[in-house]
Amino acid sequence: MSTKYTLSFFALGGLNEVGKNMYAIQYGDDIVIIDCGNKFPDESLLGIDLIIPDVSYLQENREKIKALILTHGHEDHIGAIPFFLKKLNVPVYATRFTLGLIELKLKEHKLLRETELNEIDSNSSLSFDKMKVNFFKVNHSIPDCLGIVFHTPEGTVVHTGDFKFDLTPVNKQYADLHKMAKIGSEGVLLLISESTNAERPGFTPSEQMVGEHITEAFMKARGKVIISTFASNINRVQQVVEGAITTNRKLALLGRSMVNVVEVAMERGYLDMPEGMLIEPDQIEDLPPEKVVILCTGSQGEPNAALARLSTGNFRGVEVYPGDTVIFAAGPIPGNEKNVTKIVDNLYALGAKVIYGSGSTTGMHVSGHGYQEDLKLMLTLMKPTYFIPIHGELRMLHHHRMLAESVGVEPGHSFILNNGDVVDIENSTARQTRSVQVGNIYVDGIGVGDVGDVVLRDRKQLSEDGMLVIILSMGKRDGKLVSEPDTITRGFVYARNNEELLKDVNRLVSKTVNEQSGRNKNDWGSIKQQIKKSVGQYLFAQTKRKPMILPIIIEV
Amino acid sequence: MSTKYTLSFFALGGLNEVGKNMYAIQYGDDIVIIDCGNKFPDESLLGIDLIIPDVSYLQENREKIKALILTHGHEDHIGAIPFFLKKLNVPVYATRFTLGLIELKLKEHKLLRETELNEIDSNSSLSFDKMKVNFFKVNHSIPDCLGIVFHTPEGTVVHTGDFKFDLTPVNKQYADLHKMAKIGSEGVLLLISESTNAERPGFTPSEQMVGEHITEAFMKARGKVIISTFASNINRVQQVVEGAITTNRKLALLGRSMVNVVEVAMERGYLDMPEGMLIEPDQIEDLPPEKVVILCTGSQGEPNAALARLSTGNFRGVEVYPGDTVIFAAGPIPGNEKNVTKIVDNLYALGAKVIYGSGSTTGMHVSGHGYQEDLKLMLTLMKPTYFIPIHGELRMLHHHRMLAESVGVEPGHSFILNNGDVVDIENSTARQTRSVQVGNIYVDGIGVGDVGDVVLRDRKQLSEDGMLVIILSMGKRDGKLVSEPDTITRGFVYARNNEELLKDVNRLVSKTVNEQSGRNKNDWGSIKQQIKKSVGQYLFAQTKRKPMILPIIIEV
Repeated sequence: MSTKYTLSFFALGGLNEVGKNMYAIQYGDDIVIIDCGNKFPDESLLGIDLIIPDVSYLQENREKIKALILTHGHEDHIGAIPFFLKKLNVPVYATRFTLGLIELKLKEHKLLRETELNEIDSNSSLSFDKMKVNFFKVNHSIPDCLGIVFHTPEGTVVHTGDFKFDLTPVNKQYADLHKMAKIGSEGVLLLISESTNAERPGFTPSEQMVGEHITEAFMKARGKVIISTFASNINRVQQVVEGAITTNRKLALLGRSMVNVVEVAMERGYLDMPEGMLIEPDQIEDLPPEKVVILCTGSQGEPNAALARLSTGNFRGVEVYPGDTVIFAAGPIPGNEKNVTKIVDNLYALGAKVIYGSGSTTGMHVSGHGYQEDLKLMLTLMKPTYFIPIHGELRMLHHHRMLAESVGVEPGHSFILNNGDVVDIENSTARQTRSVQVGNIYVDGIGVGDVGDVVLRDRKQLSEDGMLVIILSMGKRDGKLVSEPDTITRGFVYARNNEELLKDVNRLVSKTVNEQSGRNKNDWGSIKQQIKKSVGQYLFAQTKRKPMILPIIIEV
Repeated sequence: MSTKYTLSFFALGGLNEVGKNMYAIQYGDDIVIIDCGNKFPDESLLGIDLIIPDVSYLQENREKIKALILTHGHEDHIGAIPFFLKKLNVPVYATRFTLGLIELKLKEHKLLRETELNEIDSNSSLSFDKMKVNFFKVNHSIPDCLGIVFHTPEGTVVHTGDFKFDLTPVNKQYADLHKMAKIGSEGVLLLISESTNAERPGFTPSEQMVGEHITEAFMKARGKVIISTFASNINRVQQVVEGAITTNRKLALLGRSMVNVVEVAMERGYLDMPEGMLIEPDQIEDLPPEKVVILCTGSQGEPNAALARLSTGNFRGVEVYPGDTVIFAAGPIPGNEKNVTKIVDNLYALGAKVIYGSGSTTGMHVSGHGYQEDLKLMLTLMKPTYFIPIHGELRMLHHHRMLAESVGVEPGHSFILNNGDVVDIENSTARQTRSVQVGNIYVDGIGVGDVGDVVLRDRKQLSEDGMLVIILSMGKRDGKLVSEPDTITRGFVYARNNEELLKDVNRLVSKTVNEQSGRNKNDWGSIKQQIKKSVGQYLFAQTKRKPMILPIIIEV
């Protein structure tokens, strides 16, 4: 009888958050990592560009890692790959379209040559020391998505990837429904399933409905059509192409990611576009408007993307004219609503007709993530003994657990995890008793990880109340002020209008220093502390503000 | 025949924005101001607390101002009153409940004694030199709301205030439907109507529906109930009281504004509460949980309000226990969704059952602003010759104009205005040809108006990339560096981990200064400029960041 090991599931990212997905399955000396995504910061993280997972645990166990498998090509699943591979260069497994997107990134980071890339599809089978890995197709808002099946001596683990059930998918990309049923009937020990729309009742509508609305809007549009969606949603891009064919319009692409991703999709056979339909942006103005559709980035209101720039007249060579139709073919992700409505207002001011909204109102968008009935269907097909909801914030995980229990998963057999938590299964029993180190690494500009809490806290104070720099020239020998202190402000009050206040600050500083230097001659640290305290209190009493106070002592 | 004057409508705030409502009607030497509200800043306005209207035009015409009339007591209609009265002390007219809220503010600003406050109701009639002013009741999400009718020799102007049509209002506060019809049948020259929900199809649901859901949730709750809504929504507070009566619970109020506003409402007869129902917060823990309902502030996720603090265990003496029910009885205003979901997640972590969502999903909230059918009903009742949509962002105003034209307002007879625009009516013809000065005044801490664009721009740079202070001691006589430059950073990189980078900066600064001081001896300004340039370029190349660079030269 062979030695039995523990089967372990690691939540390294993606729990209690949206984004930064990273998971691992371990059995004996086989570790397989699932996904490697980033997260975009919210406004409280001032000046940070990206957040990626802390992979200390994996680095400590590097020799066991057999593979990094990507379920699909969205940023929150592949965005951290270049940073990850620089630390842990492991073999990468992904579908053809996903590989295309990964290669774009690796080229940008100059890592393409040293990365081992392996193409997989739903029929692939991978064998590691004690684990066998198979796949099944799922529907999502990007082509070529897979769920993963891990066969181990302890039992079968299924990871869904991101999914919905779309029974009328674009380009006939049917999900492997019968295969899922077979996997379930053979016994699933643990199901790990994504929770994004666990709060929403009903079934997720099909992508096909969007295509009909797009074509209808193209037909009604008297001027040119500008339509914005996620570049990676190639199925929706396909429907834009269909609409363009029906209404005899040429298609121009605006926005770097749109151009790049459409190119990958066409090269690899995921997008059918008639010969001669694509035109360059500089050809737009040469055609009658009713013969043009522009497909652009910026559906989330991103200030630097094509749509925002078109809305403020800042896109060189392309303008929005009265009578043009602008379509937001993507729902605003929570948090982006204000950026989107800003652009909508700008477009109204330009005289455009604007079709926007959550999608359920306009029909121009459907979610790629399963609503409650989709999630229950997956749970029913897989009939797992144990269940771990992932890929969602806490309330979504709780809703998903309730769904699992409503279709027969035993109470107590679902685990609501935090990042870092590990679920171990031995002798057919699952327990969550330990955690490993995880965390956020902040990518800021091109520096990775050098912006920590101290720097962020400083930025916050600077952003809210500004700063005061107080320069003191102190005599080295007698430890006294050599001249009047000098105060410089930024972001606090406009110095020209507030001379009295700043003069008072200088007087207060002189007073404080003279009191201190008697007691603490040449103890610059102590003098600085005292200045921060007295000036801080004074300014708060006068202005109710707390600028950062930076006393600087020059010894002369 | 008496002299004919021009009838003018001034948009002083509330156009192309949500908040900061202020309008004026002028005929001859009579100016009447309608509303005086503030706006809350979004995150791009770092550290600003409030935005109020710039009233320069009114100050230039102060002797003509006869009255400030308030349509109702929401902050975006009364929040700027204290700041306004300090500049222009004019007679104030408001309903009983609205006056109660205004008095709370005036007490805080110590202005109560010098303000002339006049109580009005829907039967009041005000006569000015050439204008007569009447009123009519409307439904809204706060008690005691009025629309205003201006009778002038040129014609009748109607201003709706904020409204919906609620045919089953709480506390039998019916709107004056017949009076509105009569006003319309006598001829309305100009209708000025609010546009908040002009994008939403259908009729606004009635408040009554919310009461039923609240009581149902109270009955199902096994532990205590914590319910959060806007303090000013006294009708909803009434329904909370009804639910408490039905389920035999005592009621505690948490949050200063909740306590204050409920007190005003009870004193003035707008809220019926049984004797002995109200308990103090410190009595909560003495009662069995199923006998308690807590009504608190914080439904918008405000980080310092009661609900946020309860969700993090930071409310002294009151805790959320597993099995408690928490109800968000207010939809999240666009922009506040993330703050709300953060609190929802915290409450799940505490084991509470949470009822939250847009309101249309939970039934715990209905809007106080008319949807499209409500707006069309008002337009139909008033049958105006001219129409000005107000109280909304640009897309809402456009939608409202389309509604007006759909029920018979002539094309070209609707005006989409910006703040500052004036519509003049002479000889029965309306035109928009001129504007007056308007703008935003920023209230920051207790300083009003001293935070301008320069300061905000500095704060933004400081918040995104931090700052570097470079201190140079320069000899007065030879204009050369006396010692090594010294660099201090805040919010840029963590200095301890980046010594090499900062050493390089110091070396670069020395080099720059030595080059410059040959050419521009003692030209400190020019040397500083050059340092900013060379260090800025260097840091950007190294880090892709642009911290604020502050060279400081000390002459020794």
